[in-house]
Amino acid sequence: MKQNTNENITIIGSGSMGTALAKVLFNNGHNVTIYGIDNQELKELREGKNTKYFPETTYLPNFKTTNNLKEALYNTNYVVFAVPSKLMDDAFKKTIENLQSQVVLINVAKGFYPNTITPLHTEFKNLTKNNLNILGVVSLIGPSHAEEIVKDSITVVDAVDENIEIAKKVQNLFSNHYFRVYTQTDVIGAEIGSIFKNVLAIASGILYEKNYGINTRAALITRGLVEMKKYALYNGGKLETLFGLTGIGDLIVTAFSEFSRNFSFGKLYGKIGKEALNTQKTVEGLTALKAIYENVIKTNLMELPITNGLYQVIFNDYDINEMLNKLITRDLKEE
Amino acid sequence: MKQNTNENITIIGSGSMGTALAKVLFNNGHNVTIYGIDNQELKELREGKNTKYFPETTYLPNFKTTNNLKEALYNTNYVVFAVPSKLMDDAFKKTIENLQSQVVLINVAKGFYPNTITPLHTEFKNLTKNNLNILGVVSLIGPSHAEEIVKDSITVVDAVDENIEIAKKVQNLFSNHYFRVYTQTDVIGAEIGSIFKNVLAIASGILYEKNYGINTRAALITRGLVEMKKYALYNGGKLETLFGLTGIGDLIVTAFSEFSRNFSFGKLYGKIGKEALNTQKTVEGLTALKAIYENVIKTNLMELPITNGLYQVIFNDYDINEMLNKLITRDLKEE
Repeated sequence: MKQNTNENITIIGSGSMGTALAKVLFNNGHNVTIYGIDNQELKELREGKNTKYFPETTYLPNFKTTNNLKEALYNTNYVVFAVPSKLMDDAFKKTIENLQSQVVLINVAKGFYPNTITPLHTEFKNLTKNNLNILGVVSLIGPSHAEEIVKDSITVVDAVDENIEIAKKVQNLFSNHYFRVYTQTDVIGAEIGSIFKNVLAIASGILYEKNYGINTRAALITRGLVEMKKYALYNGGKLETLFGLTGIGDLIVTAFSEFSRNFSFGKLYGKIGKEALNTQKTVEGLTALKAIYENVIKTNLMELPITNGLYQVIFNDYDINEMLNKLITRDLKEE
Repeated sequence: MKQNTNENITIIGSGSMGTALAKVLFNNGHNVTIYGIDNQELKELREGKNTKYFPETTYLPNFKTTNNLKEALYNTNYVVFAVPSKLMDDAFKKTIENLQSQVVLINVAKGFYPNTITPLHTEFKNLTKNNLNILGVVSLIGPSHAEEIVKDSITVVDAVDENIEIAKKVQNLFSNHYFRVYTQTDVIGAEIGSIFKNVLAIASGILYEKNYGINTRAALITRGLVEMKKYALYNGGKLETLFGLTGIGDLIVTAFSEFSRNFSFGKLYGKIGKEALNTQKTVEGLTALKAIYENVIKTNLMELPITNGLYQVIFNDYDINEMLNKLITRDLKEE
């Protein structure tokens, strides 16, 4: 699984996932440059630290970094987008403008492109359809907390694209003895699984904080998965993809882990209510929940009772107990 | 969802699940009798206690109990089998012999019938094919720890049988404001999901105890789900059933909960190794693991590398780290 060639790779974003994946790529012998806008963070990364995200990790390499996008992209072969979905529009467009070589774009974020309900990978393709600099777009997603990748914990993810040859390139780029990459050609299924699980993780966090038991959390999540399935299938994704790394796998690390910002947000909401919405942290599931509500539920395009219930709880002060009682006392049905 | 008729129901087994479901049925107004062999346990149940399984629960009803099987089955309409799978042969055959009325059999255990790789529900049907006393067989399975049902925690399960009319009867029997029952006609998918998840929960427990991170646990479980799928589809089950309450839902409460004996066994094994096999507690996943290994893996009927790896770890002292490394360094593949 060793790489034969050393590639030039630019990481857009100096946050936790950018740093963790930069480390994987550096370990694999590639020439990695991290682009960021926080000079203090970049200075630390040059010294082999990222105290904001990994206070205890002392074994990062001394990364090459820059706050100059043009310089970051000089002669690069791969560009990894490791920024929250809501900042993606700016980051993506500026990057495309500043390209000076032919590249493969790699997305590691999980969400919709800003102001759309088009998942990031799909929108990256739409926006670069006739751009000769773009050799392909691949998403690298699956059950992967940056906090563990950075410790060389065994992690398994998917390199996702319809074009399996390009996906295989990215598979080879990242794979090593602790980071295993499968390929996956169902882009829609993979993206929707990764997006929807963040929404379910918020629900899981709220129930956890409110002292509901694991039977109840499992019931809500499993019935929520029915909505994930409905949404994915409607958009052309496949059930077997949802059953894999980017669906259930990702759900496991998100809905049952303290590391997850979505789960943590749910817990915080369960504790302090609406005040939790003032958090400065990126909560991808919240952005996704709003997008799905506005575009799909409010417009009556699809009936998603649990997603709708969660939206009403978080944004319209609907009582979580009432919501659960309403869900549980609906007509008895076939599963 | 209220019952119109009060039914006579016999519970075979005075353990945690028997007691918890007896409480649900009692609350729904039915005439419930618990049959058991432990007189001390039966005495407690008559006094509204079950200190062995629910030391803190003081709000059980005063149950009718008996250690006389014939008496327990007098004029009964429904018989609920709430005994561990390995004791099922004796309990089942004796019950059938002592029936004095026409009944629906309800199975709530998750495993293979003793000395077979036929799931319980399916074997119940095989064994009673021409028995005119048997009106039907229904399994009641899904994400449901008895410890939470007994506290009236919201719980959602499936009433499983090909005959949806019989399944609906059981659905109505159990349903109330905290216990919700769906129907499910894919018996094979439901049973195999419920059995296989116990095996995966053991793996989850070992990794947890060995301080593997959530990325690694999610990866192993998700790749293990591929084996669950392979096994279920081979036997005629459906993927969408595995994606539901009896598959993923049940996996969630089993692989991520301290209540689960399978997960706890995994943790204990991770801590003390082979000694853990001397535990007196029922570990359904261990029985299932042996059955699958003996009948399916050893006979080369199916390649199930994670299930096989887990068997080798537990029964042949194979090192878990080596097993994981072997799994992760296999050829790079499509998911």
